[in-house]
Amino acid sequence: MQPTAIKETLKTHISKVTTLTDEQFDYFFSHFQYQQYKKGQSIIAEGSMVNCEYFVLSGCLKSFFINDELKMFILQFAMPTWWASDYNALYAHTKATVNVDCITDAELLCLTNEDREKLCRELHNVEYFFRWRTNKGYVASQKRLLSFMNNNVKYRYEELMALYPQLYNMVPKNLIAAYLGVSRETLSRLYNP
Amino acid sequence: MQPTAIKETLKTHISKVTTLTDEQFDYFFSHFQYQQYKKGQSIIAEGSMVNCEYFVLSGCLKSFFINDELKMFILQFAMPTWWASDYNALYAHTKATVNVDCITDAELLCLTNEDREKLCRELHNVEYFFRWRTNKGYVASQKRLLSFMNNNVKYRYEELMALYPQLYNMVPKNLIAAYLGVSRETLSRLYNP
Repeated sequence: MQPTAIKETLKTHISKVTTLTDEQFDYFFSHFQYQQYKKGQSIIAEGSMVNCEYFVLSGCLKSFFINDELKMFILQFAMPTWWASDYNALYAHTKATVNVDCITDAELLCLTNEDREKLCRELHNVEYFFRWRTNKGYVASQKRLLSFMNNNVKYRYEELMALYPQLYNMVPKNLIAAYLGVSRETLSRLYNP
Repeated sequence: MQPTAIKETLKTHISKVTTLTDEQFDYFFSHFQYQQYKKGQSIIAEGSMVNCEYFVLSGCLKSFFINDELKMFILQFAMPTWWASDYNALYAHTKATVNVDCITDAELLCLTNEDREKLCRELHNVEYFFRWRTNKGYVASQKRLLSFMNNNVKYRYEELMALYPQLYNMVPKNLIAAYLGVSRETLSRLYNP
């Protein structure tokens, strides 16, 4: 992605929520570090310290963990203009309890915890932006929990595809199954009975 | 609860996170409305518009929904110094998809959506406080989702009791079961086999 396009992607994203002057945005943007990753590459590994959150410019990430029986659970996908990290570890300064890696090649903007907090202190509108963003994440997480408790796999699959149709092409079916908390076979059976 | 105690409870809660001058806190506090509820009384009913969030002074609340088969799912308990609402409805200005009611008699401080947003605009430290609070809620919600996907009922029951030992006395066992997503009988069988 060209430098101008990188900057514009973040600017468009922020300006949907709050207003920064050009000078303020340049200052804000100067705290982000551009990073490129290859498909399959790890961004956050369980057990490591977490000091950054990531804004997705291109590609698709997954945050996941693998339990004692080696079953994978996917907590979240992250597509362009989404944010990803292990927020529990990031905010609490503890070791990661989940992994984040790349489903496809990906371009990211990395922001450290210290820089986010500094920017929030210095620019009230940036604090507003991050409050808004966490509100959205919180609500999505509550909705997912409710759906997980109440709905069957078929319903949740259709809900997911209706909400994020782009996942259908970007994400292999075994990962969709791991997001829904079922095996690839169970998911297939629903659609090729 | 005495007026002085009400004010002190909120002040102590806020001051754990941010600093407001006495004048700022008085202004902040003036936007809250004190409310008393009886055990079993409804605070938010599914299908109604939601315009407030609630800070718990005393007592215990539950947020829940009941599915088509009349099975109750508990999304969250709220004990003293916790906050509760249907945040999805509150932020999106839509109708409630969950209910909130009182497990015990309860005293609450009610803050409207408009007043929260006004206070956040006017006082940067208040914006910081609410960002911090939502971050905590988001992380708790993600942890609960992970635990729901990965752990069995016995583990989740013990995790809940270790995290919030006060629930054991405040909340009837059938509600604990509804929080864990199982029947009262299943929960009993684990502890009286």
